[in-house]
Amino acid sequence: MIRIAIIGLGLIGASLGMALRNADPKESPLGAVEVIGFDREPRVIREARGRLAIDREARTLAEAVREAQMVVVATPVRAMQEVFRELATLLPAGVVVTDVASTKAQVCRWAAELLPRTVSFVGGHPMAGREKSGPAAADPDLFREAIYCLTATGDTAPQAIEAVEALVRAVGAKPYYIDPEEHDAYVAGISHLPLLLSVGLVTATGNSPAWKEMAPLAATGFRDVSRLASGDPQMQRDILLTNPHGLTRWIDELIRFLVTAREQINAGDAAAIEQMLHQAKATRDAWLESKPHLRPGEADFTAMPTVERPSLLGFRLPKREK
Amino acid sequence: MIRIAIIGLGLIGASLGMALRNADPKESPLGAVEVIGFDREPRVIREARGRLAIDREARTLAEAVREAQMVVVATPVRAMQEVFRELATLLPAGVVVTDVASTKAQVCRWAAELLPRTVSFVGGHPMAGREKSGPAAADPDLFREAIYCLTATGDTAPQAIEAVEALVRAVGAKPYYIDPEEHDAYVAGISHLPLLLSVGLVTATGNSPAWKEMAPLAATGFRDVSRLASGDPQMQRDILLTNPHGLTRWIDELIRFLVTAREQINAGDAAAIEQMLHQAKATRDAWLESKPHLRPGEADFTAMPTVERPSLLGFRLPKREK
Repeated sequence: MIRIAIIGLGLIGASLGMALRNADPKESPLGAVEVIGFDREPRVIREARGRLAIDREARTLAEAVREAQMVVVATPVRAMQEVFRELATLLPAGVVVTDVASTKAQVCRWAAELLPRTVSFVGGHPMAGREKSGPAAADPDLFREAIYCLTATGDTAPQAIEAVEALVRAVGAKPYYIDPEEHDAYVAGISHLPLLLSVGLVTATGNSPAWKEMAPLAATGFRDVSRLASGDPQMQRDILLTNPHGLTRWIDELIRFLVTAREQINAGDAAAIEQMLHQAKATRDAWLESKPHLRPGEADFTAMPTVERPSLLGFRLPKREK
Repeated sequence: MIRIAIIGLGLIGASLGMALRNADPKESPLGAVEVIGFDREPRVIREARGRLAIDREARTLAEAVREAQMVVVATPVRAMQEVFRELATLLPAGVVVTDVASTKAQVCRWAAELLPRTVSFVGGHPMAGREKSGPAAADPDLFREAIYCLTATGDTAPQAIEAVEALVRAVGAKPYYIDPEEHDAYVAGISHLPLLLSVGLVTATGNSPAWKEMAPLAATGFRDVSRLASGDPQMQRDILLTNPHGLTRWIDELIRFLVTAREQINAGDAAAIEQMLHQAKATRDAWLESKPHLRPGEADFTAMPTVERPSLLGFRLPKREK
């Protein structure tokens, strides 16, 4: 049996716990697991227990990790620095540490700087989420078929990579290895820019003196484009703050787009506008048809080959006494 | 029986036809209807017939309106000018004309300028839609509970208003009277700005050299914020071109928002960013809870009073011989 400590039982932490506990030990590459949950908020721990997201609760961070072989840090991004600092003195040697943060470069730097050499760190980011937060919104199927980004370096212990990859597969997701800086540049465009546009739409319209009259007319288009603005502000704040470089580039792209669109609209340039709309439609429709959530190249296989994985289940995590 | 000609059998025209034909004549304020359909594209007419969106097809505009008591123009916005011009010589006296365009000021000006004094025009805009287009995407329930904007002036014949209002209720929507200029200013913010942001997101990311690597990572957030970019380019082009004044103001608001956000992100101003995110979340959550689709003031009634409408069904449309 593998003991996994989940630190932070919000939407992602609690969903991970539920998915791990729901996995069939006979089918799961992790085998049987015990999930120990910790959150700074006792209320959140109670909710996570109520959703059956954890097997056991810990009252302190020390208690959570004492017997764990794997530790998943699922707090908001910026809290991870402090969690790593605290974990440094608490982690037993040989433990595998991973995280679920939406930005990776900063988190990987903190891990390299703060975690002891006796433990292994593999950064993680499941490409899945909801605009609702907390254990109440958790869903054991949240990660099913999702791409799950993993960051590892040449120095990362192979058994740590294998262990985290087994965790990813156990919750139904697909591991996808990526460089932290590259990850942050990409998700800035496909995840953080959409967030900022959702928030911008709501901010611009909501601050208008006419909002009260406009609001009842807003329909499904507004609802969908603004959806991300209903997410957890604390989590979003950390995402925006830990990826300034990636985001700035996309913000500038969007401003350029808006300036061009304004010019074309005011010039009545029908041809240019239609071309822009055609191109965007073609890009999005191709994206939808490409079955997003397939890793690059994966779509080339009509059926996925059954990969021989003799080492699967062969990874060794340190045994802990009860 | 009332004969209704629908000119243009795209998503909205075909959905209207289906909704009208599905309405129970005993319950519907229109009573029994016959829907005559016309589209410039024979293929679209065939598709609309296949979806049972029309009772009869017309091969020409003249044939479509010859026996009609009500004419619904459901072409892309900018085509309406030409349709009105052609209709001018074809419409029998007393006919009620309405449209479904997403912008109203320009369409109302064309109607006033081009349609003969012997017919009545009431502008219409159902606040409903889909990113898919054509009769294949039509849905008889598209308008259910939706707000349906109507524009009328002091000069509009009361029986024309009543007839269009009966059409709106027959398809399950709720009439909402609004000034055309006001309508365009509002929908620019809650409908056309979201469209432009969807297109901007796809344009910015899709044009990136890294798009191929980014695309597989794009998940539900990207999918929802970009949804409107999959709409019909021709229809969208017309919307953007017929509402430059309304849109420009919102584009400027968005650019201001993005410039401010970029500054705050690069300054690491956690407090300002969090405040912006909290405010947007509060605005959107309140919007969702306010039950959008209720007309302003409607939410104040716990139950809608049964309005006495002695004149309902009393509107008189000119009788036509078979």
